[in-house]
Amino acid sequence: MQEILAEALAVAAPHRASGRVADYIPALARIDPGKLGIAFAGPDGVVHGAGDCDEPFSIQSISKVFMLALALEKVGVKLWDKVGREPSGDPFNSIIQLEVEKGKPRNPLINAGAVVVTDNLIGGGPADAAIETLLALLRAQARDESIAVDEEVAASESQTGSRNRSLGWFMRSFGNLANPVEEVLDVYFRQCAVAMSCRQLARAGLFLAFDGRDPQTGEEICPWHRARRINSVMMLCGHYDNSGEFAFRVGLPGKSGVGGGILAIAPGHGAVAVWSPALNAAGTSAAGAAALEALVDRTGWSVFV
Amino acid sequence: MQEILAEALAVAAPHRASGRVADYIPALARIDPGKLGIAFAGPDGVVHGAGDCDEPFSIQSISKVFMLALALEKVGVKLWDKVGREPSGDPFNSIIQLEVEKGKPRNPLINAGAVVVTDNLIGGGPADAAIETLLALLRAQARDESIAVDEEVAASESQTGSRNRSLGWFMRSFGNLANPVEEVLDVYFRQCAVAMSCRQLARAGLFLAFDGRDPQTGEEICPWHRARRINSVMMLCGHYDNSGEFAFRVGLPGKSGVGGGILAIAPGHGAVAVWSPALNAAGTSAAGAAALEALVDRTGWSVFV
Amino acid sequence: MQEILAEALAVAAPHRASGRVADYIPALARIDPGKLGIAFAGPDGVVHGAGDCDEPFSIQSISKVFMLALALEKVGVKLWDKVGREPSGDPFNSIIQLEVEKGKPRNPLINAGAVVVTDNLIGGGPADAAIETLLALLRAQARDESIAVDEEVAASESQTGSRNRSLGWFMRSFGNLANPVEEVLDVYFRQCAVAMSCRQLARAGLFLAFDGRDPQTGEEICPWHRARRINSVMMLCGHYDNSGEFAFRVGLPGKSGVGGGILAIAPGHGAVAVWSPALNAAGTSAAGAAALEALVDRTGWSVFV
Amino acid sequence: MQEILAEALAVAAPHRASGRVADYIPALARIDPGKLGIAFAGPDGVVHGAGDCDEPFSIQSISKVFMLALALEKVGVKLWDKVGREPSGDPFNSIIQLEVEKGKPRNPLINAGAVVVTDNLIGGGPADAAIETLLALLRAQARDESIAVDEEVAASESQTGSRNRSLGWFMRSFGNLANPVEEVLDVYFRQCAVAMSCRQLARAGLFLAFDGRDPQTGEEICPWHRARRINSVMMLCGHYDNSGEFAFRVGLPGKSGVGGGILAIAPGHGAVAVWSPALNAAGTSAAGAAALEALVDRTGWSVFV
Repeated sequence: MQEILAEALAVAAPHRASGRVADYIPALARIDPGKLGIAFAGPDGVVHGAGDCDEPFSIQSISKVFMLALALEKVGVKLWDKVGREPSGDPFNSIIQLEVEKGKPRNPLINAGAVVVTDNLIGGGPADAAIETLLALLRAQARDESIAVDEEVAASESQTGSRNRSLGWFMRSFGNLANPVEEVLDVYFRQCAVAMSCRQLARAGLFLAFDGRDPQTGEEICPWHRARRINSVMMLCGHYDNSGEFAFRVGLPGKSGVGGGILAIAPGHGAVAVWSPALNAAGTSAAGAAALEALVDRTGWSVFV
Repeated sequence: MQEILAEALAVAAPHRASGRVADYIPALARIDPGKLGIAFAGPDGVVHGAGDCDEPFSIQSISKVFMLALALEKVGVKLWDKVGREPSGDPFNSIIQLEVEKGKPRNPLINAGAVVVTDNLIGGGPADAAIETLLALLRAQARDESIAVDEEVAASESQTGSRNRSLGWFMRSFGNLANPVEEVLDVYFRQCAVAMSCRQLARAGLFLAFDGRDPQTGEEICPWHRARRINSVMMLCGHYDNSGEFAFRVGLPGKSGVGGGILAIAPGHGAVAVWSPALNAAGTSAAGAAALEALVDRTGWSVFV
Repeated sequence: MQEILAEALAVAAPHRASGRVADYIPALARIDPGKLGIAFAGPDGVVHGAGDCDEPFSIQSISKVFMLALALEKVGVKLWDKVGREPSGDPFNSIIQLEVEKGKPRNPLINAGAVVVTDNLIGGGPADAAIETLLALLRAQARDESIAVDEEVAASESQTGSRNRSLGWFMRSFGNLANPVEEVLDVYFRQCAVAMSCRQLARAGLFLAFDGRDPQTGEEICPWHRARRINSVMMLCGHYDNSGEFAFRVGLPGKSGVGGGILAIAPGHGAVAVWSPALNAAGTSAAGAAALEALVDRTGWSVFV
Repeated sequence: MQEILAEALAVAAPHRASGRVADYIPALARIDPGKLGIAFAGPDGVVHGAGDCDEPFSIQSISKVFMLALALEKVGVKLWDKVGREPSGDPFNSIIQLEVEKGKPRNPLINAGAVVVTDNLIGGGPADAAIETLLALLRAQARDESIAVDEEVAASESQTGSRNRSLGWFMRSFGNLANPVEEVLDVYFRQCAVAMSCRQLARAGLFLAFDGRDPQTGEEICPWHRARRINSVMMLCGHYDNSGEFAFRVGLPGKSGVGGGILAIAPGHGAVAVWSPALNAAGTSAAGAAALEALVDRTGWSVFV
C-alpha cells in the first residue's frame, strides 16, 4: 500500500499547477499550493501515509459528513423532514431550490443542508456542545486528542460568511431553523475550521468503510444502514455539481473541502484522505482527485467495476 | 439464486398496491398492476427468473442506457459537448435547466438528454438505422432475435409527446440537435417502445456488470471505462429526483422506466431486471424497487458496504 | 404637428448608428439601417408623416396588440384564463415562467402569450380566417386595402421558429393550446410578417387613443374598457424587459417590433408610429424610441405628468 | 370632490369583507378590518377627506416611494447601478432573480430593492439620519410635524424580518450593500413603521402629481424628470405581481402597503390616499383598490383614456 500511495502522489503532483488555492479568507490563501499528502486507513486500523500526510489542514466541508452522522444519531430519521437527500444538480441552485422547496435544502452536503444539520445537532442544548460532540468523534476515531478548531480560520469564515447568513435567515423565515441564526452559523463556521491531517482524517472516516463499525475494535460507531446512507449521499452529492465527474473518475463515495482535502470511502477496503490546496473549477482539489483516481486504478476499488 | 429471487418477489408483492400504473397512453394504462417478475443474469451468462419474468413489457427509459452506450461508441467523448453527466436534481428542472444552460441537457438519462443521445446516434444516417442498431445490440446480448418495437406504444408515445417535442425544439433553437426534430423524436419514441421481458433485459445488460465484457464469451461490448461511466451515470441520475433514495435503498446503479421495469447492475456479480407496473410518486416501480432492495439485503451487493 | 415630427426625426437620426438591425432572417437583415420614419394620426383621423413614413416594414410583434383586441372580441374575458396580464420581468423568464405557471404565459405581448392569443382567435375555425380577420381590421382602420402579409418574411420566420415551436408544444403539453401547434404557429408567423408603413400603422391604432372609438367616425372598434386594458398591458408589458425604461423615457403605452417599428398611444391625443430598423439591446428601435421621446418632450403627452 | 370621495367609499365598503388583514405582526393583526378612509390633495394643496381619513395607519411599503425620491436626491442616477427599474413579474421571483442577476434587485419597490435604496440613503452617515430625512420630507409635505415612526411596529417588523435579513445578507454577499446589514434593516423596518393618516399621505405625495413641485407653493421637491421616473416605476412595479391588474382597474401610478394603505398619483390632478386594512391575495387593500377604481370612474383620471 505504501508503494501505491507513493505512486498516486507521483501521478497527482503535476496537477497541483492546474488549480487555484481558495483565497476568500487569508488563512486559506496563504497555504503553499505545492502541498500534497495522502493517507490510507485499512481494516486493521493501521494508517499508511505519504507526502504531507501529517500536516493539518482546514477540513472545511468534509466536516459535513461527520456532522451528518452525529445529527442522525441525535434526532434519527426525523432529520429528513428538515433536509432532503437528493442531488441538487447545480451550484447556483442552492437558493433557487430553497425558495421553490420552501426552505428545505436538497441534501446535507450543500451549505444550506449542513446548516440545518448543525441546527439539529445543537437541538435545545448549548451551541458549544455540538462542536465538542464533533471533536469528540473525530478525536476518538482518529486516535488523537489534539484535533481542534483553528479559531483564526473560524473567525475569518464568519467575517466573510454573508452568503451563508443569507441561507440561514432564508431557512429561518420558513421555520426550518430552530436555533438563532448566528448561533447556528457560529457552530457551522467552527466545524468548517477543524484542522486535521490526512492521517487523522482517514482514520476518523474508517468506520464508514465497514458498515459503521471500527474494523479494529468492532465497535459500532453508527448502525450499518446509517453508514450506507451516508456513503450514498456522499456518492451522489459530495462534490456539488462535480459529483457526476468524481463518481466516474474515482468511483468512490467522497467529500471534498475547499481547503483542498478529500475524504473517500472504499467500502470493505478502507478510507483514504488526500490533501492538495489548489482547486479545480468545481472547488475540488485538482491533485487530490488525480491521486484518488490513480489509487483506484491500481487497487480496482471503484464501486462501478 | 432461484430461492433469493422468489424471496425477493414475496417481499415485494404487497408493494404492488402502493403505486399507480402509468396511464398517459392506453397501451400502458391497461397493463395488469398485479404483474411482478424478476430475472438475474450471472457471470456464466445463465439467466434465472421468477414470477412474470418471461412476459415482455415496455422498457421505456431503460432504453436510454443502451442508447448511451451506442452513441458513445459512435461519436466518442464528443458526446459530452452536447449533454452533461451531472444529476439534474429536480423533475421540473428539466426545461429551466435547459434554458439556463443554453440547450445542453444535464445528463443522458433525463428526457432532453436522451433526445440528444438519439440525435447523435442517428448522426448523418437514416433514422431507422439508429433503431436497428439498438435492436441489434439488445437482440445479440439478450440472445433473442424476437425483440422488437411495440409500434402501438410508439404511436401512442408520439401522439402524447408534446412535452418531448417542446424539449426537442428548444434544444434545436440552441443548435444542439443536428437532425430534424420530428425525425429524432420518431426514433426516441420508438426506442421507448421496445418490448422486453425481465430475462431478456437482465441478459442484455450483463456486460455492464463486467467492465463492458460479456462474461460468458469474453467479448468486449464496450471499453471498461465506458461501462464504468455508464454505471456511474445510472447511479447518480437513473431515477430523476428519486436517485438519492434508490441509491440508498438498493445501492446499485440502475435505471427505471415508466413501464414498471428497472434494470440494476451489480458490478462483478451480474445484472438484475424487475418488472411491476405500479409506480411510486417519482415514477419508479414500487414493487420493483422493493424486490431489488430485498435481493441486495440477501446478497450484500450494495456498492456502499 | 408636421414641424414636431420633423424635429423628432432630427433628434432621432443620430441614434440610428447605436443599434443593430435584426439579422435572424434575410428579409430583415438586408433592410437599410438608415431608414427613419414617423407618422401621427390625430383626433380628426388625419395622418401626418415625416421621413420614410410611407415605406412598408415588417410590423412583427406590433401585430400582437391588434390580435389581442380581436381575440378579446371573439372569446371575451375567458381569454384571461389562458394568458395572464402581468409583466414577465425578464426575457429568459419566458419558459421558466411557463413551467412554474403550468403553461400559462404571463401576458399577451410576450411570444408565448401571443401564440395563445392566436390560438383563441382561430378558435374552431380555419387558421386562414384568423389572418383575414386581422388584415380586415388593419385595412379598415388604416383605410388601405393593400395591407398584406409579406409571405417571404413569413416563410423565413417559420424556418427559424424553433424557439416558438418549443413554446407552442410546451403549452400544448399543458393543454393550453386547442389547435394543432403548427397551425397556430403558421398564423403566428404570418401575423408577424404583416407589412405596413408608419402612416398605416398610426391610423390603424388610432382607436386605442380614443376609448376604443374611431374619433373620425365615432364607430366603436372595441369597448372602452377593452381599449383601456390593451393600453395598460402595452404600458406594462410592451417592451419585454425594457418596459420600465420605455415607460420612463416615453411615458406612453407602446409596442415595439423587431422589424424596427413602434406603435405608441397618446390617450386623448392620437397614435404615433415610428420606424427605424436598428435595435437597442432589448430589441426596441433605438432611433424610434428617441423620436418618441423627442415628440413627447415637445407635446407634453407623457401620462406621468 | 367631497361627494365623489363619499361615493367611492360607499362603493368600496362591501369589499372590506373580501380581504384579510395582515397578521404577521400583532400591531397589524389587531387593526379593525372595518376601517375605511380616503383623502384627496388637489392643485391648491387643500386636502379633502372622507371616512377614517384622519386615523394614522402603518404606511409600510408606501414609504418606499419617498425613500426612492430621497435616495435619488442623494446619490443621483448612480442609484440605478445598484437597483434596476423593471417589473419583477413575480412575488417569488425576488430571491431567484437576485441570484440570477448577482444581487441587484429588479426595482426599488420590491423589498430587496428598497433595502438597497435605504443603504444608499444612509450612505456613509449615521442610520438615524436617514429616518430623520424621511420624516422631514413627510412632515414638510404633509404639513404636520407629528408624523413619526410607530416603534412598536418597527420592533415587531424586526422580530419577524427573517426573510428581509436573508435578502440583505444575500445582496451583501454580492457587495451590493455598503453598510452593515442590521444597520440597513433597522432603518428599513423603521421606515415601514411610519404611521400616517390618509390626509397626511395624500398631501405628502402631492408633488408627484405636479412634475415634482408642490402646486401650492411652487417649490421644487424633486426635478420633473425624477417625479416622472418615480411615477413610471410606481405604475409598472407598485403592486408586485398585481401591478398589471391595478394599472388596468385604476389606471394610475400607485403604491400599496401591507398596512392597507394605497397612495395613487393622478398626474395634473392631485394625489389620493386610501386605507382599508383587509388585503386581497396580492397584498393590496381590497376596499382601497375598489375605492380608487370608483374615484377614477367618476373623474376620468385614468392615464389610459
